Amino acid sequence: MTTPVILALTAGEPAGIGPELCLQLALEPRQAGIVVVACKTLLADRARQLGLAVELHDWHPGQTPDTRAGHVSVRHVEGCESIVAGRLHAGNSQYVLDTLTTAARGCLDGNFDGMVTAPVHKGVINEAGIAFSGHTEFLQELCGVERVVMMLATEELRVALVTTHLPLKDVSAAITPERLTQVTRILNADLKTFFGIDQPRILVAGLNPHAGESGHLGREEIDVIEPTLDKLRAEGIKLTGPLPADTLFTPHWLDNADAVLAMYHDQGLPVLKFQGFGRAVNITLGLPIVRTSVDHGTALDLAGTGKADAGSLHTAIRVGEHMARCRRAAIAGESS
Amino acid sequence: MTTPVILALTAGEPAGIGPELCLQLALEPRQAGIVVVACKTLLADRARQLGLAVELHDWHPGQTPDTRAGHVSVRHVEGCESIVAGRLHAGNSQYVLDTLTTAARGCLDGNFDGMVTAPVHKGVINEAGIAFSGHTEFLQELCGVERVVMMLATEELRVALVTTHLPLKDVSAAITPERLTQVTRILNADLKTFFGIDQPRILVAGLNPHAGESGHLGREEIDVIEPTLDKLRAEGIKLTGPLPADTLFTPHWLDNADAVLAMYHDQGLPVLKFQGFGRAVNITLGLPIVRTSVDHGTALDLAGTGKADAGSLHTAIRVGEHMARCRRAAIAGESS
Repeated sequence: MTTPVILALTAGEPAGIGPELCLQLALEPRQAGIVVVACKTLLADRARQLGLAVELHDWHPGQTPDTRAGHVSVRHVEGCESIVAGRLHAGNSQYVLDTLTTAARGCLDGNFDGMVTAPVHKGVINEAGIAFSGHTEFLQELCGVERVVMMLATEELRVALVTTHLPLKDVSAAITPERLTQVTRILNADLKTFFGIDQPRILVAGLNPHAGESGHLGREEIDVIEPTLDKLRAEGIKLTGPLPADTLFTPHWLDNADAVLAMYHDQGLPVLKFQGFGRAVNITLGLPIVRTSVDHGTALDLAGTGKADAGSLHTAIRVGEHMARCRRAAIAGESS
Repeated sequence: MTTPVILALTAGEPAGIGPELCLQLALEPRQAGIVVVACKTLLADRARQLGLAVELHDWHPGQTPDTRAGHVSVRHVEGCESIVAGRLHAGNSQYVLDTLTTAARGCLDGNFDGMVTAPVHKGVINEAGIAFSGHTEFLQELCGVERVVMMLATEELRVALVTTHLPLKDVSAAITPERLTQVTRILNADLKTFFGIDQPRILVAGLNPHAGESGHLGREEIDVIEPTLDKLRAEGIKLTGPLPADTLFTPHWLDNADAVLAMYHDQGLPVLKFQGFGRAVNITLGLPIVRTSVDHGTALDLAGTGKADAGSLHTAIRVGEHMARCRRAAIAGESS
């Protein structure tokens, strides 16, 4: 159990702040073994541009990553060219996806205990003619799972979503018993496996204002949410709700819960980001691997300036490491 | 300008915590003149039940309210009967509405500078055969205005809503140029009149996640919100947005704004109540009178126990007093 955790850290869009955040991390000693998955030349150039004294070392599966301050273990990925910080180049899109594939396959093969992702730029990947709607969907397909769950977390609060990037008018129709059942089961199972919580306590928001106010403000709670939650409770899942979203996020409820399940994006994430801006981490549940991510974008305007804040990446790594350790313990528990 | 502000305080549902919150307030000296609009017998009985040493004085228009600790000025309203704390009685519904009418007419007649409302119970009023969907709509009709705006506020944050108590699936269709224009104009005008802000800076949320992400996650931003905001900007209103709701509620934006305009209930209020639970106040804009309210319900289970927290009512009174003073100054400015 004392073997250090090894996390793959994908550097993301090469023109963005991802590469320099990875280098900034390397200036300090780390507990977790971090392997930056990126083009080594890109990292070397960006380090030179920013005057960062880091040494890059090639890493290969089976090796122990270098955790000393100023040293970076790199899993080199080919195909990155013409990098100017702040300037997108569609020709690098396949390279970006290759870093994700390398990291995810390394997790599936057991060479990594998890992966942490710096931001990619969806627009430029699509511009290159590659259909890509985000890390989450890409990893879902690569791992061959039917459903994943997006959860954002800070040290104090976890918010998972039943629906994610849908137009608001389509949300109601997407709240089906099937989806709600799958998402809740995944959330419950992964809070056990990846967070070491024996019997997770989950607060579920209603869909409508005041959770529908007994049907006066919408019937989805009565027709879909309540019956589904009752079935899930019968499976032993500890659920409270559906609760009005504007009372759920108060100490009375939050103090006795492990996670919140919101029905849609803007019901849950504004509170989460208000509570922990700059310290929030995006977690994909439902995968057979650990995956965390920063909660910000490529920040092209900051790339190459050294001014980007590594706060969210620090949290993503800390949470990724915790999840990897819990997962190891869960697997050890199963096989003992 | 040194004439004290006089606020009418309606005690709300007689079986709820409203009456005792009004009495609790009276135990301390006040700056604002408060006139409790309620049945005097109800207040006397509840004071006796809770062992509160308060003296009740009949108040009539033109008199200065008693602001000494332990003294309460009461505008008596007839028709309240059979009161047991915690037990609703439909026969009191007309009495409850009469307290609202008395307070609102007193504001319109200039006898009060504003009104603050303790919670009523919609259910029991409707049970009595009286159509009633809330204070806001009742006052809107009584004052004869076409549109009102619900705003919740703490000392640090103000959130107004374009739509309020609608099923989520109906929200998109309700975001029309007309409604958005009316609501924004009212918010802008009332931030000036009632809050003394010369040139209000308003952050506007998008409707869809990521404010639609250039149309990929919904088109309402492009088709409705952006063109409407542009027209309103041309009128001189300072608007920023549409912004993604999950980045809007962060210091980068909030530190330079006077209010947030959210498109719907659960986009704006969870953050507001998370930020200031127990200290939030509900404000109705668009009325010719000042009206604030507590942000909680009748709490029938707490009524008669003396355990109810007067925090929100304190804030509602403080904000109501501030609004009344700003309104006086605005009127004085206009007529000078």
